[in-house]
Order: sequence, then structure tokens, then C-alpha cells
Amino acid sequence: MRTQTELQKLFQDYLMKQKFENHPAELYDPMNYMISIGGKRMRAQLVLMSCEIFDCDATKSLSQAMAIELFHNFTLIHDDIMDNAPLRRGHKTVHEKYNHNAAILSGDNMLIYAYQYLLKNSGEKIHSYLVHFNDTAIRVCEGQQLDMNFEKQAIVSVEEYLQMIEMKTAVLVGCALKIGAIAAGANELDSGLIFQVGKELGIAFQLQDDILDSFGDQKLTGKQAGGDIIQNKKTLLLIEALTLADSNQKEELESWLKKKEFSPEEKVKAVLRLYNELGIRKIAEAEMLKHYQSAMSYLRKLEIKEENKLVLKNFAETLLIREY
Amino acid sequence: MRTQTELQKLFQDYLMKQKFENHPAELYDPMNYMISIGGKRMRAQLVLMSCEIFDCDATKSLSQAMAIELFHNFTLIHDDIMDNAPLRRGHKTVHEKYNHNAAILSGDNMLIYAYQYLLKNSGEKIHSYLVHFNDTAIRVCEGQQLDMNFEKQAIVSVEEYLQMIEMKTAVLVGCALKIGAIAAGANELDSGLIFQVGKELGIAFQLQDDILDSFGDQKLTGKQAGGDIIQNKKTLLLIEALTLADSNQKEELESWLKKKEFSPEEKVKAVLRLYNELGIRKIAEAEMLKHYQSAMSYLRKLEIKEENKLVLKNFAETLLIREY
Repeated sequence: MRTQTELQKLFQDYLMKQKFENHPAELYDPMNYMISIGGKRMRAQLVLMSCEIFDCDATKSLSQAMAIELFHNFTLIHDDIMDNAPLRRGHKTVHEKYNHNAAILSGDNMLIYAYQYLLKNSGEKIHSYLVHFNDTAIRVCEGQQLDMNFEKQAIVSVEEYLQMIEMKTAVLVGCALKIGAIAAGANELDSGLIFQVGKELGIAFQLQDDILDSFGDQKLTGKQAGGDIIQNKKTLLLIEALTLADSNQKEELESWLKKKEFSPEEKVKAVLRLYNELGIRKIAEAEMLKHYQSAMSYLRKLEIKEENKLVLKNFAETLLIREY
Repeated sequence: MRTQTELQKLFQDYLMKQKFENHPAELYDPMNYMISIGGKRMRAQLVLMSCEIFDCDATKSLSQAMAIELFHNFTLIHDDIMDNAPLRRGHKTVHEKYNHNAAILSGDNMLIYAYQYLLKNSGEKIHSYLVHFNDTAIRVCEGQQLDMNFEKQAIVSVEEYLQMIEMKTAVLVGCALKIGAIAAGANELDSGLIFQVGKELGIAFQLQDDILDSFGDQKLTGKQAGGDIIQNKKTLLLIEALTLADSNQKEELESWLKKKEFSPEEKVKAVLRLYNELGIRKIAEAEMLKHYQSAMSYLRKLEIKEENKLVLKNFAETLLIREY
């Protein structure tokens, strides 16, 4: 099978050939902009990788990889409106660069294009693709709503948080792998297993993101350091800290959560000190590792070549073991 | 074949059985609200009617009728955000009743559910459904963007306006009829013809809406009288008026268009007087009639029972001949 680098190039070359140059420009420019500001194309690569893992040429799943990539970008455009986010991947978000209406409508259009690509070269597989893609897309919407609900919810449990990220983020990673497996003609058992691999990896990726948001190096992440802390985002880190804090620590943490006016740097510094006192990073890393290991145990169950498993395992590790 | 009243009841009964009661409520309540405030379900009825016109039991196209209805409602939710509209069908719009984020996300979810319903009981027809549905959906987005562009565009020609309403409104009416035809197993020629019937009817319906907005009876339309006039909406009426006005009339019309502060009633009254002087209603009605007749000429070409053609013709007439 192709290496990860080869798959990355395969998708990049394909992507460059896709043009969204229809009329009117006000609709298509935001789409092209969003696609151009990149990202790792991780989900697209996972479609292709899964296809090859099951001994099928990845080119057969290129349009489905594109569908998953477009769907992911659609969710980012709309989520950024809902979260009022100014930056994405170090660039202006679509609603900031253009306007709210352009972001709503070009996001809608991108979702429809995702279905266009899902259909391309699908043959009889379109039924399986659609069943799985629709279920995933609905769960992603439900997950985004839960995430928004949590902002107003006083107490969020670890279980609720993990369920939310499973829906908002992880099922799409599972879906990417499953779509690739379906493209390759894998059986139900195997495509079910590889979905679980992706879902568990997706949870691990999100936990890694949460950890890096607080503990990563701003110069390397390209994000505002401690953005989640500044916004009181109820990540696993904050949830665990609130659970484990003694009365003094809890009082201090809650006073920071309540403050309307504060120096962001001071807040991040103070909350990180509390996180360090409570050993939060280790706890979150343990949770991340648990899901990574769960993914690997599903991967082991697959009856495919060991060398193929290794390609996915290595890719997952490069995505997870980021110190920045 | 069933009568229009029977088809209406068939769809209404089906719709009542569809429940969107999943979790979280914040996502599904806006969807249920939007569906509950009704509308004529014209597009859904056209799917069913087209299916029966081609001698097939309409029950076979119920889920596809639902798909078209959901898609239409999705566009209304998002259009209302973009147009900042407070009311829809005499009720609060979704973003007014809930909030902007709920309207964005529940609209997205509704679009995905439209694809879910399109897939149900589709068998091999899913390919044709998707090709046509996707093309239509993309054109609807492009049409909505054009409509927004026109707000900022100094001059809009009659041709541009007609092209915009064709994309934003009329192709979905054509799509509804075509999907019904595909469900019935109609051949390509017939399903192409019935698409044209719907497209031309769709243009006529929109022109009728424009005419009623300015000349209809507010008590019967349930809309703000002269809403389009108040908002300077570049409908066929305004475009024709600007073209036909002599220099005095044009000066008066443009002075109303430029005014930032005015009494809405006074503006509507003054613009309607100009419209009457210029015979705008007759011109718009002639354009509407042209498209209605074009629809009927496509309908005549269909090689189906005359009595079946009559059911569609009568339905179109009840929709078009509204004096309110």
C-alpha cells in the first residue's frame, strides 16, 4: 500500500484539480478561500488510507475523501460563525473575511457539494455511503448543539464531555475510515471495526487538542495560548480541575471563571498553576492514552496485513505525539 | 389518480407521523417549530402528483416528497436569517423565536435530514434522485446569492431578475415534479418535460407572489402590505417601473428609493400610484401568464392521460389565480 506521504500527495494533487469557479463569485470565493487555508486534510487521508488498508487502490475513494474533507470544512465555517471565532488555522474565519451571510450560504453550498462528491464514482456503494454519512452528519450537528449547551450549563460531567466530543469530532474520523473501507469492499465486521478505530482515535485527537491548547507552545500551535482557559471552555481539563480541587483551589478557580474583566495572560497563568497543582495534564493524557489504546485494540482485531495496520498506527502516532 | 385534496391529505397524514424528537431539544425544537408553522406543502404535493400523473401510486414517493419539503424549509430558515426577516407565514422566524445559532444549526440538520428522506425506499433510483436534487440545491444557493447581490447592484435587468427567480425558486418546483416522475419510473424525455413544466410554473408562482406583495389584500396574504416596496426589493415590478418611468416619474420613484426615513404607508401609497400610472400590474401579469402558458405547452407534450394533465393544470390554477 501507499505510504502516508504518498497518500497525502495523492489527495493534494486531486484537490488542486477541483475547481469551484461557478457563478456567482460571492458564493464560491468563500468556499475556495476556506479550502485554500488548508489544514492537515487528515480526514481525507484517512479515507484513502483505509481504502488501501483493505487492499484497494486509494484512487477509487478520492471523491469520497473529498466529500469528507468538504463536510469537515462546512462544519468549520458554520461552527466559526456560531462560536464567533475570528481566526482559523492562523487566517481570518470566513465570516470575518467576507460576512455572516456569505459564511452561512457558502457553508450550505459546501455541504451540498460534499454530497455531490460522495455520489461520484460510487456505483452501488452510494447506499452504504449515504447511510453512514448521514448518520454521522446528524451526530456532528447534535454534538455541536451539545457543545453550545455546555456553555450555559453549570456542571458538565466527564461522561457528558466525552460523549459530546465523540459526536462533534470523533464519529467523523470513524466515518472517514469506514467510507474508505466501504470503497474497498470490506465486509461489515471489518468496516464496523475500523469505524471504532477512528472513533477512539478521534476522541484521542480532541483530548490532545485540549491539552495543547493549555500546555502547547503558542509559536508552534499557531493558536492563542490558553484560548480555552480564557473562554472558560468546559474541556476535560477544566472539568477534572473543578472535580479535584480542594475548597481553596475551587474558590480561586471559580473566581477566575466568574471574572468579566481580567488580563488574559494573568488568567491563563493562574489557571495553569492550579492545573499543575492538581496534575491535570497527566490525567488528561491518561484519558487520551486510554482511547488511543482502545483504538489500537480494535485495529488488532482486523484481519488484514500487519504492515497495513502499521501505516495507520504510525499516522495516528504522528498526529498524537505532538509536543507543541 | 388521486385528487389534489387526496394527495394533500396523504402527505399531511405522513408528515404527522414523522417525529423529530431526538436529543438535544435545542436542535430539534426549531426544526419541529418550522415544520409546524406549515405552509401549503405545495412542493411535496407536486412530488406526489407527478408520481401519480405517471400512473404510479403516490405512496411510493412519500419520503422523497418529505425530502423536498425539508429542503424547502431549510432554505427558508437560512434565508430568513440572511434577510433578517422577523416573520414567516405569520409566525416568528426561527432565528427570532430561538436564536441565530439555533437557526443555522437546525437548518443544517434539516438539510441532512432531507438527504435521509431522499434515500428512504429509493432503491436504484437514488442515483437519479441525487444527481437532480444536488444540481437543484446548488442552483438554489446560487440564486439566493444572486438575490443578495441584487440588493447592492444599482441596475438589475428583467433578464437577470428572471434568471435569479428561476434559480432561487423555480428549479425546486421543477425538481419536485421530476423527482415524482423518477419515482414513477417515467422515461428521460417525460421527466425532462415535467421539470420544464415545474420550472415555468415556479417562475409564474414567484411573479404572482411579487404582484400580491404590492397589490394583494394584506388581510388575506398575512404579510405586511407592500413589504417589497418598503425594502426597495428589486422585483419585476420595480425593474419595469424604473425602465418605463418618464423623467418626472423616475425622479419621484428614485427619491423614494433613496429616502432613509419615511412613513412606510406613505411610501407604499406613492409607489403604488406610480405603478398604476405605468400599468405595472398588467405588465407583470402578462409576464406571469407567459410562463404559465409555457408550462402548459410543456404539459401538453407529455404522452400521458389527459385527465392526469388536468389534475396538475387545476392545481396550478388554484395556486396562480389568487386575488388576495
